[in-house]
Amino acid sequence: MRQAGRYLPSYRELRARNTFEQMVRDPDLCCEAAVQPIDRFPLDAAIIFSDILVTLEAVGCPVAYESGRGPQITAPLRDPADVDRLRPTSDAARFLGVAPEAIRRFRGLRPEVPIFGFCGAPWTLFCYLVEGGGSDDWIAPKRFVQEHPAAARVLLDRLADIVGDLLQAQVEAGAAAVQIFDTWAGCLDGDGFQQWALPGVARALSRVKGAPTIWFTRDASPFLPYAHQTGASVIGLDWRTDIARARTLLGNVPVQGNLDPVALFTPETVAERVDAICDAAGPTGHIFNLGHGVLPGTPVEGVEAMVQAVVRRGERR
Amino acid sequence: MRQAGRYLPSYRELRARNTFEQMVRDPDLCCEAAVQPIDRFPLDAAIIFSDILVTLEAVGCPVAYESGRGPQITAPLRDPADVDRLRPTSDAARFLGVAPEAIRRFRGLRPEVPIFGFCGAPWTLFCYLVEGGGSDDWIAPKRFVQEHPAAARVLLDRLADIVGDLLQAQVEAGAAAVQIFDTWAGCLDGDGFQQWALPGVARALSRVKGAPTIWFTRDASPFLPYAHQTGASVIGLDWRTDIARARTLLGNVPVQGNLDPVALFTPETVAERVDAICDAAGPTGHIFNLGHGVLPGTPVEGVEAMVQAVVRRGERR
Repeated sequence: MRQAGRYLPSYRELRARNTFEQMVRDPDLCCEAAVQPIDRFPLDAAIIFSDILVTLEAVGCPVAYESGRGPQITAPLRDPADVDRLRPTSDAARFLGVAPEAIRRFRGLRPEVPIFGFCGAPWTLFCYLVEGGGSDDWIAPKRFVQEHPAAARVLLDRLADIVGDLLQAQVEAGAAAVQIFDTWAGCLDGDGFQQWALPGVARALSRVKGAPTIWFTRDASPFLPYAHQTGASVIGLDWRTDIARARTLLGNVPVQGNLDPVALFTPETVAERVDAICDAAGPTGHIFNLGHGVLPGTPVEGVEAMVQAVVRRGERR
Repeated sequence: MRQAGRYLPSYRELRARNTFEQMVRDPDLCCEAAVQPIDRFPLDAAIIFSDILVTLEAVGCPVAYESGRGPQITAPLRDPADVDRLRPTSDAARFLGVAPEAIRRFRGLRPEVPIFGFCGAPWTLFCYLVEGGGSDDWIAPKRFVQEHPAAARVLLDRLADIVGDLLQAQVEAGAAAVQIFDTWAGCLDGDGFQQWALPGVARALSRVKGAPTIWFTRDASPFLPYAHQTGASVIGLDWRTDIARARTLLGNVPVQGNLDPVALFTPETVAERVDAICDAAGPTGHIFNLGHGVLPGTPVEGVEAMVQAVVRRGERR
């Protein structure tokens, strides 16, 4: 899961010396942050340090990460004319080299550890671009697609192509798998999801060859019947989703998930919760993970208890 | 849906002259706010004005409603000893007479209009009590149940009895139906929902006789397979939930919902979205409603367009 390092003292030291902007723009820092968890825990894979919003710089909308306020878009899109002033897609690649380069350096340092890449899905990027920052209700992006559907489609397609190319660049740099985070797809209803979120994920993933792809949204349950249409190799499950029922619905498609991140705050009960998820998921086709990002304040003992419980299950097989 | 009046200029005038605390504590003001929407639109029923958190005063934890900050609990519960200092259940009734009295007055003023009562579900009340206010992650209540399960059970049972009694008092005052809002049940995973949210709803609703009951949570999809265990007569559906699939899953149980509240911001496209929901829901067993509360800033024209579209469908039958 993203924000993987937040619980580690060594990560907090790294962040104390560097702003978030400096972190996401420097391949060496991204690589260092990705190495920290695997040096501390017996994990099966690492995740490159990056942010789902780095893609926005490639369309000419840089993001300011102010502590306590969440990401802020300097010039949010409010009408169709704003779409035309975005940077052309042909220029995107030169802004998106950091994560692939960080993956390349990670591979040099730790060739034996599989490294995962990721980026934000088109709809989630669109949400931030139009809203200008985080939101509970995402009124602005949901109004935009109702009021300017043609411009929304143009922008979402453009974002999908950039996202697909970024994921493919990560694969070519050596990523063992790439994740596409459609964090806010769950602000849409079923029709909206099919119209505005799903096509962008499918379009982006159609550009990715040579590594498995993992799709995640924070509200998977309502949309699981469409999950296969994303084209993703693996479906990420949020913590509310019943993993056994999801597997029945998804058939042979592997899943990733889905421990409640809050479970890590009570290390004593983590192992039984890990066991319950693994029992429900079954012995194959399951990548153990959290059902959403690591929360601020998570004790490292909770992460330790989770990793130990997963490792113990692997040994018992 | 709750917050029903927010979009009406007449409601905003009423609020300009009275604080939220004054509103929820005065049966005449609650009644006046409930009358406003039915005087403006051809609605089939009214909803009494109240707040899901009024119940907290009955356990000795008053709520401060500060504008812009959301509700704040003066003395949140943090450990099991705090549960013992709560007001005994036997004293609860004298703090909960406002909504029933408002319903009685509404029935006197508008005897021809069915009036719905409501209150917050035990788990959602517990969330606010322990967290101290609104939250994205509800870390404190979810830790509390892990760390102090016995005390949590005592408190949730106590809240369930008070909630059940309040709903029953609303029915006895003349409510045509009562709703139980478990807004934040969706912060729990499936096991947590079954352990901590579901039993409280079932316990509260077992005390309600003589009127239909409606259960709502903001994240219905993951929990629909357990919905019948609530004992509710009607299942409320949030806007993400596919209403056709929910009906298949729920069999003969009627549903309420589930237009995206953001749809009202674009009045021109509301009618087609209303039609899509009614088509998917089928001709019987469906109470048309939003899939969550009315959002601040909602234009009255959007509400108008929604009501007109629903009325037109009724006439076409």
